[in-house]
Amino acid sequence: MAGALHAHPSLLLLALVISPWLLICATFLAPVAAAERASYIVHMDKSAMPPRHSGHRAWYSTVVASLADDSSTDGRGELFYTYDDALHGFAATLSASELRALSSVPGFVSAYPDRRADVGARHDTTHSTEFLGLSPLAGLLPAAKLGEGVIVGMIDTGVWPESASFDDAGMSPAPSKWRGTCEPGQAFTAAMCNRKLIGARYFNKGLVAANPGITLTMNSTRDSEGHGTHTSSTAAGSFVKCASFFGYGLGTARGVAPRAHVAMYKVIFDEGRYASDVLAGMDAAIADGVDVISISMGFDGVPLYEDPVAIAAFAAMERGILVSSSAGNAGPRPRSLHNGIPWVLTVAAGTVDRKMFSGTVTYGNTTQWTIAGVTTYPANAWVVDMKLVYNDAVSACSSAASLANVTTSIVVCADTGSIDEQINNVNEARVAAAIFITEVSSFEDTMPLPAMFIRPQDAQGLLSYINSTAIPIASMSFQQTILGTRPAPVVTAYSSRGPSRSYPGVLKPDILAPGNSILASFAPVGPTGLIGQTSLRSEFYVASGTSMACPHASGVAALLRAAHPDWSPAMIKSAMMTTATTIDNTFRPIVDAGSIVSGNGSAAAASPLAMGSGHVSPNSAMDPGLVYDVGPADFVALLCAANYTNAQIMAITRSSTAYNCSTSSNDVNYPSFIAIFGANATSGDARFSRTVTSVGAGPATYKASWVSSSNVTVAVTPATLEFSGPGQKATFQVEIKLTAPAAPGGEPAFGAVVWADASGKYRVRTPYVVL
Amino acid sequence: MAGALHAHPSLLLLALVISPWLLICATFLAPVAAAERASYIVHMDKSAMPPRHSGHRAWYSTVVASLADDSSTDGRGELFYTYDDALHGFAATLSASELRALSSVPGFVSAYPDRRADVGARHDTTHSTEFLGLSPLAGLLPAAKLGEGVIVGMIDTGVWPESASFDDAGMSPAPSKWRGTCEPGQAFTAAMCNRKLIGARYFNKGLVAANPGITLTMNSTRDSEGHGTHTSSTAAGSFVKCASFFGYGLGTARGVAPRAHVAMYKVIFDEGRYASDVLAGMDAAIADGVDVISISMGFDGVPLYEDPVAIAAFAAMERGILVSSSAGNAGPRPRSLHNGIPWVLTVAAGTVDRKMFSGTVTYGNTTQWTIAGVTTYPANAWVVDMKLVYNDAVSACSSAASLANVTTSIVVCADTGSIDEQINNVNEARVAAAIFITEVSSFEDTMPLPAMFIRPQDAQGLLSYINSTAIPIASMSFQQTILGTRPAPVVTAYSSRGPSRSYPGVLKPDILAPGNSILASFAPVGPTGLIGQTSLRSEFYVASGTSMACPHASGVAALLRAAHPDWSPAMIKSAMMTTATTIDNTFRPIVDAGSIVSGNGSAAAASPLAMGSGHVSPNSAMDPGLVYDVGPADFVALLCAANYTNAQIMAITRSSTAYNCSTSSNDVNYPSFIAIFGANATSGDARFSRTVTSVGAGPATYKASWVSSSNVTVAVTPATLEFSGPGQKATFQVEIKLTAPAAPGGEPAFGAVVWADASGKYRVRTPYVVL
Repeated sequence: MAGALHAHPSLLLLALVISPWLLICATFLAPVAAAERASYIVHMDKSAMPPRHSGHRAWYSTVVASLADDSSTDGRGELFYTYDDALHGFAATLSASELRALSSVPGFVSAYPDRRADVGARHDTTHSTEFLGLSPLAGLLPAAKLGEGVIVGMIDTGVWPESASFDDAGMSPAPSKWRGTCEPGQAFTAAMCNRKLIGARYFNKGLVAANPGITLTMNSTRDSEGHGTHTSSTAAGSFVKCASFFGYGLGTARGVAPRAHVAMYKVIFDEGRYASDVLAGMDAAIADGVDVISISMGFDGVPLYEDPVAIAAFAAMERGILVSSSAGNAGPRPRSLHNGIPWVLTVAAGTVDRKMFSGTVTYGNTTQWTIAGVTTYPANAWVVDMKLVYNDAVSACSSAASLANVTTSIVVCADTGSIDEQINNVNEARVAAAIFITEVSSFEDTMPLPAMFIRPQDAQGLLSYINSTAIPIASMSFQQTILGTRPAPVVTAYSSRGPSRSYPGVLKPDILAPGNSILASFAPVGPTGLIGQTSLRSEFYVASGTSMACPHASGVAALLRAAHPDWSPAMIKSAMMTTATTIDNTFRPIVDAGSIVSGNGSAAAASPLAMGSGHVSPNSAMDPGLVYDVGPADFVALLCAANYTNAQIMAITRSSTAYNCSTSSNDVNYPSFIAIFGANATSGDARFSRTVTSVGAGPATYKASWVSSSNVTVAVTPATLEFSGPGQKATFQVEIKLTAPAAPGGEPAFGAVVWADASGKYRVRTPYVVL
Repeated sequence: MAGALHAHPSLLLLALVISPWLLICATFLAPVAAAERASYIVHMDKSAMPPRHSGHRAWYSTVVASLADDSSTDGRGELFYTYDDALHGFAATLSASELRALSSVPGFVSAYPDRRADVGARHDTTHSTEFLGLSPLAGLLPAAKLGEGVIVGMIDTGVWPESASFDDAGMSPAPSKWRGTCEPGQAFTAAMCNRKLIGARYFNKGLVAANPGITLTMNSTRDSEGHGTHTSSTAAGSFVKCASFFGYGLGTARGVAPRAHVAMYKVIFDEGRYASDVLAGMDAAIADGVDVISISMGFDGVPLYEDPVAIAAFAAMERGILVSSSAGNAGPRPRSLHNGIPWVLTVAAGTVDRKMFSGTVTYGNTTQWTIAGVTTYPANAWVVDMKLVYNDAVSACSSAASLANVTTSIVVCADTGSIDEQINNVNEARVAAAIFITEVSSFEDTMPLPAMFIRPQDAQGLLSYINSTAIPIASMSFQQTILGTRPAPVVTAYSSRGPSRSYPGVLKPDILAPGNSILASFAPVGPTGLIGQTSLRSEFYVASGTSMACPHASGVAALLRAAHPDWSPAMIKSAMMTTATTIDNTFRPIVDAGSIVSGNGSAAAASPLAMGSGHVSPNSAMDPGLVYDVGPADFVALLCAANYTNAQIMAITRSSTAYNCSTSSNDVNYPSFIAIFGANATSGDARFSRTVTSVGAGPATYKASWVSSSNVTVAVTPATLEFSGPGQKATFQVEIKLTAPAAPGGEPAFGAVVWADASGKYRVRTPYVVL
């Protein structure tokens, strides 16, 4: 994946990738290895609880105890979590026979093995909020009072409470509805919470159950990894002046909702991450009263009824909590997405208009020329009018010994061999400065010496100058960050693509948010830079991934929650989706870097399977005109139409009485459309019904427009909708017809239906995809 | 001097001293070496110009040409400057015979050799303005509209126009009275000026005349040294976010008058600095219409009538221009001051409440202890739980070879031998980190490796821990800057002391301003840091000296000029002096670091000979209640009483008609008193008359209070003054009697006369010294 990024420097911003995350981000997650006794998540029908039990905890304990087979030599099953908000049920270690016995216990709904989770992860806060158009002076940010009174629950690796992003100066106290706690633990005291970080809890019983006797590096909510500190400061970090990663991206860092409260639910430990722990964390977040749940991780290849995010998010939706999640980093392969859950916001990662790690080479004795380069050198080195060396003897940069005579010069290394080895050799030789001619545009570390990458096509003039000049000289500048780069946003190649494997009938991902080269607070858990032999520390870190995109969307949702306390999660989501932009800063359609990877080298317009409805536009989302609302029962109808069993549905809904399958529909009131006819279809007809609610002031008339193509015809009926005032609803039909087969191997057809009001103020856009 | 600073870490903040300046700052300045032909500054009586000349330039040319001795073999005298604003006259290269001939030319006043000047120099802008209480929200800064419309003329080493401090965003255009230019030259175009830097001119004819054929490194207003960029950004630099010196002092940098305009008059070149060039620069500044002249340099050991600063400042005063100058860095020796000119503001250097270069060592395996250290390491090194090494084999740190086996540890170097050598050895050995036990608290460079100084008394606990622990470990933190240090301000040891040698009858210096460890913009003319072998670049620099104090006072004067356009320079100066504070942030009298150097190791209260009236208090100066005004004629009376010749007086006043010695007085209406009876005097009586002008609103009654001591009695008559309204004047007498000899070798007696108004709002303080 990194290689794919490397190959396309023109479109992709440099990503410092946290390697361990990268390694796992594209892998499927296997269930726990089958041992004598394993961890299971068990869903129960709470309405079936016998009246003799004092409560659900007692009941579940009794159930687990009753399963014990006294002839067993390996002890008893042990209950390690009871759940009551995200789901009804528990997690326990059970033997195969206990599991069988459990299935006949009255009230049993379903059970499945606990599973390790994937952090949909790699980490612009000093700039991405500006790129989103968020200004304290006008628009959503002041309308939402910067997120005041809203609580963002983070399901992540914990938090470094000392980070400046969690300074609570100017914050109001936690709202009265808040029922969370600040749980003490290893290197973490209750006093470490404040008005910004109002809650801190950690959940690792599933991890411990699956790995008995395991020693945890950090048995508390303290972030021993950095990911959770980064995501939570991105969503809701306080203003921090003069933040940078070693001078790169220098500016004021702030979360998207800088006055919102943060509650951290640590479910990811260095030693692993388990579904039961994720469920426990989300269960607690719902009970504690958060407004938005942000979860930058996902479970690949699991059905909705065994996906802890899907299960807990359903309960969250019922409580009015929006769950925002990362799409994953397994792109650009189709169907690589996780968290493709209809009632969750699924966020793809885009670039911002910033080239984070830039430097320049200026060469020439009288006339001077300048080349832009890429560098992560973590200081401002003084390389001024230094002699350039490029010759056969040294420029392979193939050993430190070969460079011994040129240590006071700028050594130009040719594009031969391994760039990592060349960097090592040049550093080992203690060369004063170096220029590497290479197509490589990223480096997974900081440059240990004053050096930069320049592209072969840019190097030609430099080499001619060196060859034609007695004493060729150059100067180099570091720690530059270039703003206003174009095009931006671009959908990153790594961002996972739809359609959703867990529910293909709803178009996923939902939205694109800044996820590439994002600067945010980090846990100082290890050096993040190197100069020569000296390791360096940075309080901020630049990271890339849908993990970084997700908290941007979560922050926007928090601002919308503050601005519109009466909106349902679906209305917030609809507002974000229908106002998203599909145009980049060159006024052309947002392009897909992944289309270069998989295509012919030039970027194509991004399809909704890459970016959903488009790039989130917070200020427009504040006032969307129309919203597509949808409630829990509508999603149940979807599950019914999918022929899920009652037990499977109940694992999600928790109740056999609140919902039933008397209504069954594979069409839900979603602000996007996906018509799947199959690759070989020559014709097809898909019909959708949608109901929109006016949320603008006063009466309004909307007219529809839509895009058809050579083989796809779209019809919208009626094509005009009248609203007498806010709160009024109107229903329309969309018919998408496939009239001819798609070109073999071609991209899926896509387009949009747009409702525009007569005043020109509102433009409510819903994308479609035909597969 | 550096050694003296080093010895007293408790009171002095670390000063990064620009070495070449340091070397010259205490030296007297010799006239140009006697050559066959030498440069002279010639004063002429313009009223004596024969009417046949078209103007003064033609006259002076004719005069110089007429001097030519045709029998001379060494060519003709050459006129290289004509002056008309600072003085009437010219500068020319003359032979001894030509000089003799000149003296009989009608209109000749005086001539003296051109001389090299001293930059009274070493370099807090990110913090010193806060320390001065300047806030954009209240007080002088908003009252003065941040200096809008005021022009500060800098007589200095030039300017680096690209520095962020000269960004003109938000600046208004130069006022219509501005007549200056942006002179092109080497690496400098007219386009480099803007609304912030409105003028740039350079003057080196005197330098060239004294050194024929000399090649100038930078023949333009571009600063090839850094000093002028630092002083001008300190006086009037724009707001620059996230300024620091390699992370130290990180914050928003701003000049004292951040919306004032800057006009640079470069008179200091790498190759030298000459009186004739200084005169030319000041002459131009006066003609161009600046409001304040800031000159961080001075001429030692010259009489007022040959001191270019004194001569030009007199003309400036007549035009309503305040001249602010540095006292010099030759302290704490008495009578070490230059610019002791009665009509100039003479500024001493104090510390600010900031320890710029700080770090910490945290040691211990379970219990942890912390020691504060001093470090200039220019990065945030990752030194976490690293092994400590302290033993006989290595801790002398006497060679790189002896350290070869401990390169992955923190080496503790004992307080033996040269600290500079120890640093070199440890760096050469590429040791991971080091702790130096030493009384030294400054280092004239950045630390090339992660290392810091700790004091011997702080090291004892560390050494006990190392000796009693199997694997002793420590962590180190860098790039710390500690605010709120106490006491502050402290008068620096190096700040030059009064009384004035050029006019002892007026108490000098006048005022104390921040001058130690000042962060401001710098010209990137060379590396300013080092990591390992790599030189580093910083746009900002920390420097110390009265050169840095002077532009602080100049900036305050600019703000007062903006707030009170009708005040005379003397009124501005009086407002600054009578409202200056003599109390530090421990609520005790400001102490004198120089008293440690010359005394018994504990700091004594600073005398007015060290700090003048006290530490400048801009917000109080805005509304002083009473002012001591004084005009040019009053100073002429002073010169007359000093028995200067008519020619000497005319060299200063330029005119034989505007002033005369009909009034002669050695007592001028100055807001301070100095009574010189002599070291051996057993009694004495000095009488002073002063006139104060009410500048407060409405009627007011002021009562005097004063301090007497065992051998000095003070009387003030009348002790009550009534004012019916603003503009009203009142006169009083002060008598200072010596009643017994001073203790031998003791400090001069000092105290103050204070006028306090009945409302309690105003406190008008005037210090006295008895010598």
